[in-house]
Amino acid sequence: MDKVQEWNALAAQLAVDGIRASTEAGSGHPTSSLSAAHLLAVLYADHLRYDVSDPRNPANDRFVLSKGHASPLMYSVLKAIGAITDEQLMTYRRFGSPLEGHPAPVPGMAWIDVATGSLGQGLPIGLGMALAMKLDTNPARVWVLMGDSESAEGSVWETMANASFHGVDNLIAVLDMNRLGQRGPTMLQWDGDAYADRARAFGWLAIQVDGHDVAAIDRAYGEAEEAGRPVLIVARTEKGHGVSLVANQEGWHGKALSKEEAEQAIAELGGPRSMVITPPKPEARIAPPPTPWTFELPTYEEGIATRKAFGETLAAMAARPDLVVLDGEVSNSTHTEDFQRVAPDRFVELYIAEQCMAGVAVGLQALGKTVFAATFGAFLTRAYDFVRMAAVSRADLRLSGSHAGVSIGEDGPSQMALEDLAMMRAVHGSAVLYPADGNAAAKLTWAMAERPGISYIRTTRENTPKLYDASEEFPIGGSRVLRRSDADRATVVGAGVTVFEALKAADALDAEGVAVRVIDAYSVKPIDAETLRTALGETGTVVVVEDHWVEGGLGDAVLEALAAGGELSGRVIKLAVTGLPGSGTADELREAAGISAAAIAETVRGVPGT
Amino acid sequence: MDKVQEWNALAAQLAVDGIRASTEAGSGHPTSSLSAAHLLAVLYADHLRYDVSDPRNPANDRFVLSKGHASPLMYSVLKAIGAITDEQLMTYRRFGSPLEGHPAPVPGMAWIDVATGSLGQGLPIGLGMALAMKLDTNPARVWVLMGDSESAEGSVWETMANASFHGVDNLIAVLDMNRLGQRGPTMLQWDGDAYADRARAFGWLAIQVDGHDVAAIDRAYGEAEEAGRPVLIVARTEKGHGVSLVANQEGWHGKALSKEEAEQAIAELGGPRSMVITPPKPEARIAPPPTPWTFELPTYEEGIATRKAFGETLAAMAARPDLVVLDGEVSNSTHTEDFQRVAPDRFVELYIAEQCMAGVAVGLQALGKTVFAATFGAFLTRAYDFVRMAAVSRADLRLSGSHAGVSIGEDGPSQMALEDLAMMRAVHGSAVLYPADGNAAAKLTWAMAERPGISYIRTTRENTPKLYDASEEFPIGGSRVLRRSDADRATVVGAGVTVFEALKAADALDAEGVAVRVIDAYSVKPIDAETLRTALGETGTVVVVEDHWVEGGLGDAVLEALAAGGELSGRVIKLAVTGLPGSGTADELREAAGISAAAIAETVRGVPGT
Repeated sequence: MDKVQEWNALAAQLAVDGIRASTEAGSGHPTSSLSAAHLLAVLYADHLRYDVSDPRNPANDRFVLSKGHASPLMYSVLKAIGAITDEQLMTYRRFGSPLEGHPAPVPGMAWIDVATGSLGQGLPIGLGMALAMKLDTNPARVWVLMGDSESAEGSVWETMANASFHGVDNLIAVLDMNRLGQRGPTMLQWDGDAYADRARAFGWLAIQVDGHDVAAIDRAYGEAEEAGRPVLIVARTEKGHGVSLVANQEGWHGKALSKEEAEQAIAELGGPRSMVITPPKPEARIAPPPTPWTFELPTYEEGIATRKAFGETLAAMAARPDLVVLDGEVSNSTHTEDFQRVAPDRFVELYIAEQCMAGVAVGLQALGKTVFAATFGAFLTRAYDFVRMAAVSRADLRLSGSHAGVSIGEDGPSQMALEDLAMMRAVHGSAVLYPADGNAAAKLTWAMAERPGISYIRTTRENTPKLYDASEEFPIGGSRVLRRSDADRATVVGAGVTVFEALKAADALDAEGVAVRVIDAYSVKPIDAETLRTALGETGTVVVVEDHWVEGGLGDAVLEALAAGGELSGRVIKLAVTGLPGSGTADELREAAGISAAAIAETVRGVPGT
Repeated sequence: MDKVQEWNALAAQLAVDGIRASTEAGSGHPTSSLSAAHLLAVLYADHLRYDVSDPRNPANDRFVLSKGHASPLMYSVLKAIGAITDEQLMTYRRFGSPLEGHPAPVPGMAWIDVATGSLGQGLPIGLGMALAMKLDTNPARVWVLMGDSESAEGSVWETMANASFHGVDNLIAVLDMNRLGQRGPTMLQWDGDAYADRARAFGWLAIQVDGHDVAAIDRAYGEAEEAGRPVLIVARTEKGHGVSLVANQEGWHGKALSKEEAEQAIAELGGPRSMVITPPKPEARIAPPPTPWTFELPTYEEGIATRKAFGETLAAMAARPDLVVLDGEVSNSTHTEDFQRVAPDRFVELYIAEQCMAGVAVGLQALGKTVFAATFGAFLTRAYDFVRMAAVSRADLRLSGSHAGVSIGEDGPSQMALEDLAMMRAVHGSAVLYPADGNAAAKLTWAMAERPGISYIRTTRENTPKLYDASEEFPIGGSRVLRRSDADRATVVGAGVTVFEALKAADALDAEGVAVRVIDAYSVKPIDAETLRTALGETGTVVVVEDHWVEGGLGDAVLEALAAGGELSGRVIKLAVTGLPGSGTADELREAAGISAAAIAETVRGVPGT
């Protein structure tokens, strides 16, 4: 069998298996799989350098199925390369099967690096992988299969711009231009010139090809491999190709064929096959760099902004060779510039493109990097879908959001992170940290680097006084009790800037003979439930004060922890931002929001019995 | 004084006033204002058709300062057109002043339509305004001043694609290419050809101009006005132009000049001026269409998916002429296609570009439209920054998120909205609604249309049984008590799909002789605190069950409401999604998440005393 015959036969097998799996499941996207069967047949048979038995081999080329709904095709490929059995293929979409509706790196699915299914994410993730290879002078390549509909997502164009700007030459995107989106024709339908022109304007090489002509696909892949720059292959395809019932027909998106329809389609495609192919071998496995490294955390004897302590801690940790830091063009605000200064080769400026930044972070960590990404906390909202999906990817993603709350002052509400704690709490497995001073910030930044999963550190624009000695420890999940006596008549829980307001309020109340406990809940999630429950039990009243909307933040976290302890008894009062702030000084805005020391003291005075 | 002299003098006044205001405030962005002074001088003096005394006149052209940090320039323009006094200008960034750090339509700032300050939002908002004008056959135009840095945001390219696709000819974007971003050079610096090529590839007319040559600017504006398509004017400028200390210098982003520096700069610019100009008059005020309209809400006698009821309600309300519906290419999933079918001219398909969709919604409502925008709840995370900013814009924004929770089943976690309640609760002034059946969905969709501010309706993929008669009312902020007796030993609070699980659990417990109260908390925010407090007081235990992450959703809302009532006494148990779900049937996944009827019943059985 010559190459062309082999590729076509393999493509037919992938098509058939995609139909079989989705019909067996009773749902899925066979037509979106059919359009790309030839593209993946040629790729896996002769271009992707991939060791199936060692999918974590860093020398492997990487493949990202950005159009994650074409999962029947992906799993059919895994069968064809001998990664899974036909029996496993038939568990597609069943409860407990690793063959989920959209691919994800669940246990048993070692050949999938990242989760997809939210469109426009594969390309930024692919860029992150390509950058990781460059950092390691690893000659591997990244291939991304995109849908045409997803080119409407801005994250694609953020990445097109950043990839060419950063001179990446190992990223090849294949656009499956099958003309039909979920509910009808795409914006550009089969206008391949338009896609190509856009890619070229963004600095990419663009190649147009008939996506069902395997020899042409092979030539295009070969050209792309030698391009020396990022490449978009625009492949004109038919949705549902090869099955006359559905080919190029509207109304078949995301619909499995019935058993009878499937039988007919499979016959039309030449019946089931059981070819097993071996992709080209990657180069020899690259040894991980032998790198003993040590560093010393910065320590602070004076007040400092926690954002500055965060940046200096990154800089101190730069000795760690897997550490990579990303920023969204605000490195002099987030202070990642301190890292850039000492490790410019491992700092990636992604400009004002927060989605791309988060996707790049996911891609980098998939290849073993320890990644921090930073911008204003308010602008991380831009990347929420990526953060959500990073959790599905089981990714280790470390985010820093500066400029928290009304305390930023004059810049006004557009720049104030007031929903970041809520947003980051509602992410699977996340840690949400909010240090009050420089020493706590340094310790928590280090703790993030050591912690798998998704973590977030909220930092403050203004300088805050030194509160802790550099020797003190801040385990994730802990808290610090700053004032405590047996006579405490209430507890004030703060985090970040409001810890200082709480302490001032405690001093004022103390002068009036009212003792209050003060807790620094620097770990908003997981939160130190035991200390909080003890405090409620002993003092009867907990006042939570936060520079954040009243919904979803520290107050809700405290309530959740208290409720989880069983019978509730006592009073929990939330002080948080409820009115829309404007400009002003930090003190004016905290006062107006009712989260100042004066507001806390007044609240405690109003509690019956104090 | 000839035109050129007049424009230059006006530009110098704007430059001086921007410096005066920011130096007086001690913060702000004078250099980013200086680069665009000539561009706005020519625009306001001779191109923007604008009635200063009637800023809400729909016949006005609209101006959006997408680079919102150039607020000193914006307010200087407002002084020059006589909208504000010099004394008001000097209140810039002070607490209580309507001249906030970034422009927002606060009381006293009638000349600002929408808030800016998060970059990349002005263009999608401008597209929404342009579409509103088209719908009203209003010959007005929209002008958007963009920064060069913000072109890195994907939302800009989502909008470039959609604007040309929708054939808009009344949208002119002016890109202030001043070469310098916050922390150094932009990606493209002064490569005007690159910007122009990208715009052309996206179907726009691109014009390059020297942004300090007023005559050339005037010609470019004239050409743009006649273009018959969307136009990007790439204006080469200098950051800090006209002030030798800062012109084209790095390190001056976002820094006010000192008093001494300002004095010298003002002298260099020819000293203070007090020109007052009158922009060209708009056409006569367009009368609002005299449209008495009536409609009947759909009613349901059988079970239906709430997403379908939502779509049918939009269709029923189509008689309302100001109603416009947007979708992100999933209208057959969200069921906005039902509206499209009856009012295709007021349905706007924005393809898979959720940020653009949200921005367009804000632009449409700024010109008086009542807008609903829909996509999968999971993918609204993509638009969170826009939703956050819409609140700062005091916008009326109505969002619908379909495919909530693990209950979507086989598609898996990438498609499941599990953080949408948390996200939408943490938006200023929002309402968060989650109907259980078709009749409730119809009533709540209507209630959203009537409610100002930001509201969100969460809908369900699967059919749910009929629970309510069509005659029942569902006020926002209310709840429905579905089971109640004096013997209730616990209360189960659900919303949406979990209401049915709660009822099944109640039936099972009833058979065992355990009476439980069941509450449908269809209004998650504002929540019916009184009913919840009564329930806790009377039954001693509240079990909250939700198809959402345990953080930030219904459980936190219930706890907040209970805590706000004062002394807490009782038990609150949250059942929610904690593990990462996979694929499976809705029932399998609810069971696995511990939010099924069986899990609820088991939880109630475990409560001491029941």
